[in-house]
Amino acid sequence: MNAAETLAEYAESLPLVDHHVHGALRKAPDRAEFEELLTERAGGNGFDTQLGFAVRRWCAPLLGLEPSADAEAYLAARVALGETEVARRLLAAAGTDTLLIDTGFAAAGLLGIEEMAALTGQRVAEVLRLEALAEDLLAEDPSPSDFLDRFPAALAETDAIAFKSVMAYRSGFDVPAERPSRAALLAALDRYAAAGAGRLTDPVLLRQLQWWAIDAGRPLQLHCGYGDADLDLRLADPLLLTPWLRAVEGSGVPIMLLHNYPYHRQAGYLAEVFGSVYFDVGLAITHSGAASRAVIAESLEVAPFGKQLYSSDAFGLPELHLLGARLWRRGMAAVLAGFVDAGEWELADARRVLALIGRENAVAVYGL
Amino acid sequence: MNAAETLAEYAESLPLVDHHVHGALRKAPDRAEFEELLTERAGGNGFDTQLGFAVRRWCAPLLGLEPSADAEAYLAARVALGETEVARRLLAAAGTDTLLIDTGFAAAGLLGIEEMAALTGQRVAEVLRLEALAEDLLAEDPSPSDFLDRFPAALAETDAIAFKSVMAYRSGFDVPAERPSRAALLAALDRYAAAGAGRLTDPVLLRQLQWWAIDAGRPLQLHCGYGDADLDLRLADPLLLTPWLRAVEGSGVPIMLLHNYPYHRQAGYLAEVFGSVYFDVGLAITHSGAASRAVIAESLEVAPFGKQLYSSDAFGLPELHLLGARLWRRGMAAVLAGFVDAGEWELADARRVLALIGRENAVAVYGL
Amino acid sequence: MNAAETLAEYAESLPLVDHHVHGALRKAPDRAEFEELLTERAGGNGFDTQLGFAVRRWCAPLLGLEPSADAEAYLAARVALGETEVARRLLAAAGTDTLLIDTGFAAAGLLGIEEMAALTGQRVAEVLRLEALAEDLLAEDPSPSDFLDRFPAALAETDAIAFKSVMAYRSGFDVPAERPSRAALLAALDRYAAAGAGRLTDPVLLRQLQWWAIDAGRPLQLHCGYGDADLDLRLADPLLLTPWLRAVEGSGVPIMLLHNYPYHRQAGYLAEVFGSVYFDVGLAITHSGAASRAVIAESLEVAPFGKQLYSSDAFGLPELHLLGARLWRRGMAAVLAGFVDAGEWELADARRVLALIGRENAVAVYGL
Repeated sequence: MNAAETLAEYAESLPLVDHHVHGALRKAPDRAEFEELLTERAGGNGFDTQLGFAVRRWCAPLLGLEPSADAEAYLAARVALGETEVARRLLAAAGTDTLLIDTGFAAAGLLGIEEMAALTGQRVAEVLRLEALAEDLLAEDPSPSDFLDRFPAALAETDAIAFKSVMAYRSGFDVPAERPSRAALLAALDRYAAAGAGRLTDPVLLRQLQWWAIDAGRPLQLHCGYGDADLDLRLADPLLLTPWLRAVEGSGVPIMLLHNYPYHRQAGYLAEVFGSVYFDVGLAITHSGAASRAVIAESLEVAPFGKQLYSSDAFGLPELHLLGARLWRRGMAAVLAGFVDAGEWELADARRVLALIGRENAVAVYGL
Repeated sequence: MNAAETLAEYAESLPLVDHHVHGALRKAPDRAEFEELLTERAGGNGFDTQLGFAVRRWCAPLLGLEPSADAEAYLAARVALGETEVARRLLAAAGTDTLLIDTGFAAAGLLGIEEMAALTGQRVAEVLRLEALAEDLLAEDPSPSDFLDRFPAALAETDAIAFKSVMAYRSGFDVPAERPSRAALLAALDRYAAAGAGRLTDPVLLRQLQWWAIDAGRPLQLHCGYGDADLDLRLADPLLLTPWLRAVEGSGVPIMLLHNYPYHRQAGYLAEVFGSVYFDVGLAITHSGAASRAVIAESLEVAPFGKQLYSSDAFGLPELHLLGARLWRRGMAAVLAGFVDAGEWELADARRVLALIGRENAVAVYGL
Repeated sequence: MNAAETLAEYAESLPLVDHHVHGALRKAPDRAEFEELLTERAGGNGFDTQLGFAVRRWCAPLLGLEPSADAEAYLAARVALGETEVARRLLAAAGTDTLLIDTGFAAAGLLGIEEMAALTGQRVAEVLRLEALAEDLLAEDPSPSDFLDRFPAALAETDAIAFKSVMAYRSGFDVPAERPSRAALLAALDRYAAAGAGRLTDPVLLRQLQWWAIDAGRPLQLHCGYGDADLDLRLADPLLLTPWLRAVEGSGVPIMLLHNYPYHRQAGYLAEVFGSVYFDVGLAITHSGAASRAVIAESLEVAPFGKQLYSSDAFGLPELHLLGARLWRRGMAAVLAGFVDAGEWELADARRVLALIGRENAVAVYGL
């Protein structure tokens, strides 16, 4: 076997830790819902994308069709098998053994943590979304001063293995680094209540949620870069976090920068220069499909190999759980085989880097 | 034939729609003018660039020389054949069948729309540059309140198939998204007159021109990213348009982001998440020559295949009309063959994506 | 021989001019120091990086070990040979013949210019760091008005072949372009003295140092982009220099943008559109190791071939002097061979571009 084959085989056999993922759908989507989940946009043509091509290429055979069967045949096979059987097949083929599940978005339509464990037989743990918890606590009891005690207490008590911030979606990262004052927090909570509560977007509060997460001392995941049209992508450049990363570096709390595209080189730089910063290019691999190898190669430039992780960020469609893993395995094996074939790397080193990024770094950071 | 050969042959045979291009030169350039048109800068060494190498490689044989003939031989052959014959040969070899021609810059030295039709025998249509029209109307009649009626009326009456904004060159995109008030417009027009008219750079007026274009309901092309030294490239990042794209999304007017380099991944993201946003990497392909395949591959990451178009942005030199097409065909075929050879795409899908981006998306958006 | 072999052989034989480099270590580092010099960060795992893999791959054989020997064996071989012998071997194998040495950082622990000349037998010249000179002069004599005369006089008198600014590290580039007034300078110098002198970070003073360098008329090197955690990388985007580059273009003084990663495409654009702007991707090649070919390819997109140079930015470890050159030679040869094999470039042109970037552009700009 040449390097490409050896590494492909090794990559396929590696049980991955998916350190940021969501539940699979509770019930079968119709075609419009299916395409919307592929494109992150209502009304988009989900099949005329890299991701759509990858669904046809890699998921169709797992549903008993030819590779790259057409969209109609694919959707018909999905219906015929039923959502549970589709999920069972695709999640099994993903070849993960651990799922760290973000439960903070659209949870009602998705399988919960225990259900995902039952469906897959894999180890699962919860990633708790800070903004969702804050909104829930404030809905129960809007008293500002109570909230200042109840939120950190809730973080301390939860079983969650990590926290997640979606500040990128709410205010963007171009906000001050320092911890807000108590007076500023109380004023912000008053503004929030006066505005009728709901979606929490005040940067003062969003910043404080992150500081409370740092105090709680568990790994903190931050959505960075690539997402849907709710985002102002420029304000999700992880480099905007630089002053804050400097401020929290002393805490030693692992900061996990998720996705990052098209700022993944920037994320790799942050992972190099800050001891507690880790990153992945999760969602960008799934959505760039056959073109994801360049993204993967760029994620392997300046970042230390101990500072990158695997995630799928799959949401709802089990196709996304499968493709995150499939494209990561194929892309990583191809890129690393390129290094070996060029005479730059040893095969054993390539294998070790695959294991670090696909599994071992997550095991170490999350204490699995 | 392998995938690379099949796709190369198919790409060569595809009649392209060049959805953003300028006229060819009216008379032969001297050497300094020729090199300036290659580099977008006076005094540059136009032949020691990717574009210069591509001219020698691909245009020389069409002028009866060996591939990669030297610069002196190339320029001598140009003179011997005469500008019209050079243009005829190179424009024919470009293999387009439709040219959407921006007539708003340095038009006196270039062939007009009818002359381009006569020279090439191809379908032509005009792209009307908003700023040039505004400057012309204000030169005829500087009355601010008249202008507020005359400009939208002129847009409604023109035969232009699309509009074009060069706000990127004039103010950059870091301007408010909303429609200026009538009072703000009148004040800006007074300032413009008081400053002696001339080049229109006031962001209030530039924004309003775009809003009028939206009202007029034809596709609006925006220069984004890569251009000459008049530009502040950072302020031409299409992501700065995000709030404005959100504001105009409801109109359904197609927004065509041109060039975008080095922010073409950002443009691809905008094309994914906004239903009316389309993009190309036009000028960046011509200028990066042999290295354009990476740019092309990056343009095929997250953007849906129905949202990308072909343009050359060729200006003056018919070499640029030829090379835009030649490099696009070769680069696209090579990149897509890579996906097929990697086992990720089917050949038929690759062929379809070539047709969409090279031709069919433009036919649909512009109603050709 | 095929193109790849021919170009690899030619690249290996080319005597490089390293136009931005530091001295080698005066004494042997311990393991922690060695790894810190690999990662630009204390406590990092220097061997689990592209650079660490490249050290094992390319330096181990020069120390009598197998390629990719393990880290322990490598460090033991280093100790056994002694620092001087290690430096002698690695610097000789780098194959440079000219070193332009930045003496302005941590000079006490590094070999000086004469010592580097003695160790290598190569031509050496000094690159004078503006901020270090200013801090030294102000430490000797803090009088503001004296300094306004003494600093330009010192620039005029020095033997340095070029100047270097680290404004990127001190204030970032988002500062006004114009020359500060005398009053503003005197006020800034008063503030500096009142703050206890030390590290000079006032943007008014940093800007004036650059203007004085322009007045002195020697090439001015600017650190851009990639560096350590002291940097706010976003503020080191060379595009932020655009208004200043426009302001100094008339002087004709060559501006050398160093490193630039991940903004190297932006640097290439500046080198295309500004006649006096040159650039390199120095440090980014060393740190991205086997993945550096993409960075090199991107540096060859829009920039004219007469506007790019070679540098290693090697600091302390002679491994970095060797790897800068080794990875540049291998990467450039592979990328250019790709252009030739694709039928886009002639072999002779590829050879010429290697010579321009590796050597001849530096000879011309610095008048070597």
